[in-house]
Amino acid sequence: MIKEPIFDIAHLAHIEIYSPKLEESVAFFRDMLGMEVASRKGKSVYMRAYEDHYHNTLIITEHDEVGLGHMSFRSRTPQALERRVEAIEKMGYGIGWIDGDIGHGRAYQFRSPDGHKMEIFWDVDYYEATDDQKTNLLNRPQKRPGRGVPVRRLDHINLLAKETNKNVEFLEEALGFNVRERILDDDNKDVAAWLSVSNLAHDVAIMGDALEEEGRLHHICYWYGYPQNLSDVSDLLIDNGYEIEVSPIKHGVSQASCMYVFEPGGNRVELFGDSGYLIFDPDWKTVEWKGEDTERAILWHGSSLPEEFFKYGTPIKSKEAVK
Amino acid sequence: MIKEPIFDIAHLAHIEIYSPKLEESVAFFRDMLGMEVASRKGKSVYMRAYEDHYHNTLIITEHDEVGLGHMSFRSRTPQALERRVEAIEKMGYGIGWIDGDIGHGRAYQFRSPDGHKMEIFWDVDYYEATDDQKTNLLNRPQKRPGRGVPVRRLDHINLLAKETNKNVEFLEEALGFNVRERILDDDNKDVAAWLSVSNLAHDVAIMGDALEEEGRLHHICYWYGYPQNLSDVSDLLIDNGYEIEVSPIKHGVSQASCMYVFEPGGNRVELFGDSGYLIFDPDWKTVEWKGEDTERAILWHGSSLPEEFFKYGTPIKSKEAVK
Amino acid sequence: MIKEPIFDIAHLAHIEIYSPKLEESVAFFRDMLGMEVASRKGKSVYMRAYEDHYHNTLIITEHDEVGLGHMSFRSRTPQALERRVEAIEKMGYGIGWIDGDIGHGRAYQFRSPDGHKMEIFWDVDYYEATDDQKTNLLNRPQKRPGRGVPVRRLDHINLLAKETNKNVEFLEEALGFNVRERILDDDNKDVAAWLSVSNLAHDVAIMGDALEEEGRLHHICYWYGYPQNLSDVSDLLIDNGYEIEVSPIKHGVSQASCMYVFEPGGNRVELFGDSGYLIFDPDWKTVEWKGEDTERAILWHGSSLPEEFFKYGTPIKSKEAVK
Amino acid sequence: MIKEPIFDIAHLAHIEIYSPKLEESVAFFRDMLGMEVASRKGKSVYMRAYEDHYHNTLIITEHDEVGLGHMSFRSRTPQALERRVEAIEKMGYGIGWIDGDIGHGRAYQFRSPDGHKMEIFWDVDYYEATDDQKTNLLNRPQKRPGRGVPVRRLDHINLLAKETNKNVEFLEEALGFNVRERILDDDNKDVAAWLSVSNLAHDVAIMGDALEEEGRLHHICYWYGYPQNLSDVSDLLIDNGYEIEVSPIKHGVSQASCMYVFEPGGNRVELFGDSGYLIFDPDWKTVEWKGEDTERAILWHGSSLPEEFFKYGTPIKSKEAVK
Repeated sequence: MIKEPIFDIAHLAHIEIYSPKLEESVAFFRDMLGMEVASRKGKSVYMRAYEDHYHNTLIITEHDEVGLGHMSFRSRTPQALERRVEAIEKMGYGIGWIDGDIGHGRAYQFRSPDGHKMEIFWDVDYYEATDDQKTNLLNRPQKRPGRGVPVRRLDHINLLAKETNKNVEFLEEALGFNVRERILDDDNKDVAAWLSVSNLAHDVAIMGDALEEEGRLHHICYWYGYPQNLSDVSDLLIDNGYEIEVSPIKHGVSQASCMYVFEPGGNRVELFGDSGYLIFDPDWKTVEWKGEDTERAILWHGSSLPEEFFKYGTPIKSKEAVK
Repeated sequence: MIKEPIFDIAHLAHIEIYSPKLEESVAFFRDMLGMEVASRKGKSVYMRAYEDHYHNTLIITEHDEVGLGHMSFRSRTPQALERRVEAIEKMGYGIGWIDGDIGHGRAYQFRSPDGHKMEIFWDVDYYEATDDQKTNLLNRPQKRPGRGVPVRRLDHINLLAKETNKNVEFLEEALGFNVRERILDDDNKDVAAWLSVSNLAHDVAIMGDALEEEGRLHHICYWYGYPQNLSDVSDLLIDNGYEIEVSPIKHGVSQASCMYVFEPGGNRVELFGDSGYLIFDPDWKTVEWKGEDTERAILWHGSSLPEEFFKYGTPIKSKEAVK
Repeated sequence: MIKEPIFDIAHLAHIEIYSPKLEESVAFFRDMLGMEVASRKGKSVYMRAYEDHYHNTLIITEHDEVGLGHMSFRSRTPQALERRVEAIEKMGYGIGWIDGDIGHGRAYQFRSPDGHKMEIFWDVDYYEATDDQKTNLLNRPQKRPGRGVPVRRLDHINLLAKETNKNVEFLEEALGFNVRERILDDDNKDVAAWLSVSNLAHDVAIMGDALEEEGRLHHICYWYGYPQNLSDVSDLLIDNGYEIEVSPIKHGVSQASCMYVFEPGGNRVELFGDSGYLIFDPDWKTVEWKGEDTERAILWHGSSLPEEFFKYGTPIKSKEAVK
Repeated sequence: MIKEPIFDIAHLAHIEIYSPKLEESVAFFRDMLGMEVASRKGKSVYMRAYEDHYHNTLIITEHDEVGLGHMSFRSRTPQALERRVEAIEKMGYGIGWIDGDIGHGRAYQFRSPDGHKMEIFWDVDYYEATDDQKTNLLNRPQKRPGRGVPVRRLDHINLLAKETNKNVEFLEEALGFNVRERILDDDNKDVAAWLSVSNLAHDVAIMGDALEEEGRLHHICYWYGYPQNLSDVSDLLIDNGYEIEVSPIKHGVSQASCMYVFEPGGNRVELFGDSGYLIFDPDWKTVEWKGEDTERAILWHGSSLPEEFFKYGTPIKSKEAVK
């Protein structure tokens, strides 16, 4: 007899990032990554990729400090939402209900142990294509944009945390996440962990913050599904003066063909060039990388990562420590 | 309030096909698709792809008639297995328990309304790499083979059925499958349906049998994840005299970059070149293709499919009707 | 002792096509294929791809009849130009000198035996990037456009001819072309021939006109170099209502990964997804495809081509014969 | 009036490398890169890739010191061979005629100013496929091998030189090479130069030897034409314990998608994933990279190269200086 798994969270639904350069950030996602502006309200711009089915998956909010606004999960049913709220409240991490936002209905907000603002909701608004945006490819919500090298959908988020284990356990217990892979230090404590509720190797990753800060964001990730598109968009990004931190590589963890670039506000954005490997085994044994294997976890194909990759997060702290 | 979904089936675990030319069929999967022979017993050869984690995902059994032996699902928990058995028995499709087979423990066997033999199990044996097959890529169960153009894992199965709707409903009700896409005729009856319990657009497809036969197989599918590998393996297959039925195309349904080839026994094998699109929305509205859209469902990129694609299944019936 | 080869023609430099729908044709090349408008004069628009180094490689001229305006070769030296003019004049195909056009200096015009208008020149104008178009990739004349799925450079032209052999011989004798591959009929007459002065398998192809017309165009071809971009642009073309005649396939001849689409004026445009194979052997023996091999010459990977592919050319003749 | 170019060298025809571990080196090229053993004689093994048309393109000779044996060009005609011999002799770099070797007839041997042994020949033996190796793809000399991730053809060679300029000038004057790109130091002296007689951006490269040694080899290069194959072969190489020096990157110079690996003898081998850009302009202006642009010349996409890349050559000198 095995404990029944928690199937209450369906997936990562949207992310809000802060940017001190709102219009430049919007231009990056719109013109380079081909994303669509879905709506604007106050200091926020709501965007989506062309294969995102919901009204929006990215909110960019003008803010003097760069970083994560909040991240949002969709539950699998209305009652699953209630169950998760109850669990979170019991654990003492709850903030409370909000009436909703552009694109979704009432949502329950809470914080990770590290302080990252999160939320869960059920009611959602779908993107409705205008007639000139309807495509004959009926499983795709709109036409492929002819702008930039367009990403297809939101993939995952990677958070920095002062205490990795505590945050990993919270995601497991409060939300039903499964730890798919982890990097362990010599004391068998998590250096980093990759978790999912889906068949992806990760919907959320938690990595130890080298600066021992709390609540920071390492990166958000959008998905192409084709490695060639990483090369295509690299040319576009370089030619337009954006800073690519890591050119196309292949991680060991998740087997992702990917790259990293900074959006103008300063947040790190990952682009995924394939689907990595998918996990179907319901009894998956967490893959554990330790000692000298760790190098292969980070780079399966790739020469080296800049030091900054392991330190820089948003909000940007003690800049000197980074460079 | 929404009815709680059934999360009891985790995925398609393995498929048994019949072949009148056992060794030639094994050679095809081993030398062209780079699969490994895991075990042999009696008239059966057990094989797996290099990213399949279980002991085997394909069983080829010598048989005078080509076609499907059986297909097998893994449940999400031991208790989920019991729940599904109870549901199937109630519906009157059960056969009974077997003690297990090479690679898995006790399993419950049953038939689809159309007669396809199916089974569910929980206890499974994992592939254990010998030392010379261990890879530093710890989430991969073994080294990449240096033989053929190796497929990575089992993807899905596509069944022909005399009555599509009846079989689709069985998969929904007995096993908790979700209908992700369907092609409908003018009377809104299913011509074909694509169903999954995972984030894939389909783990199982059911298509109407144009010959009105029962219990036939349209194809099994293994996965590459990279469209280029379809071109690579095409050269190898042509040069070695195998019959490619459909060269690389892109379906509308599932957005799959794929191709079709006949293994020497006569079963159709699909090869998947990307991951298509993935479904994360827990409230996914079935995509419905009708009328003139149907052509795009079948071919999003691609010139035409041979007539045979819509008629040929295994076992091969009334050969004249096919050619 | 081998006869010294003629090295006087360097490459295909530009093509003029006629279109009855000038602005729609321009929009196709600009917005779908990411090409740049270099200049406009009278009823002509001069365009180039972002890796074309010259001022222009495509001229679209408004004309009531669709088809080839002219095609233009660049000589290897000024004196090579004079030598070719002398040879052409001797053979009786010359028209005469023109002072030049936008993008190049004085040019000698002539006709193929079939009547296709051709020209050779030496003096050329290079594209000069404005400051905002300069790229740090110094071997590329400008930034990668963020519009459509941009083609990289002009590749080749394919002409229909009433008498294939006569036109092939003209290209060999007057211009020094080498026949790289040919399809022969049962009488060993050319059905089609692929010729080059470069390492490409063809700069020019000549195919027998099934309608026995003279001077028609089968297609012009622009180059991506990456098969994935054929899939990318297919989505864009379908979504924007363009007619793809042949979705991505692989020819045997030249080993090209390619596709065919009609620009709005009616001319067929090929897009090249890789570089095919290159020819370095200075003593290359023409590859000859005959009898049942011919099918593989046309389709190495690919199911079938529409009948139209073998009949339709521009100008469009006896439309009934085509459809 | 422009000086008539020299068209006497057609291409790089083969390379001999020395290896102290003959059988291990052969196994690398055969089992990882899918090359064929064409012949063995004495301490030498003659190999070719499956799209190489000649009898062999790589000779591996057992030798206690690793490095370049010799490299060989094919002339465009028999008389072109005589012309080049005369020119080389005049410049004082000649060694003399040999009767030929396995795969080619009489050849003239000489040394570059730096001492690299070179040769030119005209008479060549073609690979003749045995019946079981014949393919229906008639422009390909044999079937695609089902072993490793097979390279398609020899691409180029990169030599280290004590005095770059002197060697570059020799290739220009004696052999008719064109300098396509160069990296210049602050005194406008060549740090490195890429030269070709073909449409490739380089058939031969010369780079300054950081250790100021003479006559060393930086790398030889075989060609895939598809970036995906670099990822495929990387997995195979890592899993089989080979040392990848540089995982897939994209150079600015030549726009090559490529990677570097050491064969067991110690020679560096580059694998080319696309065709880079091709040069058709007969009056190509050498692309010059200087100052801070130099970084982009070396890495257009890619994070960094190991220090070793700029120092290590074969024969290996003063190992300490490298590591």
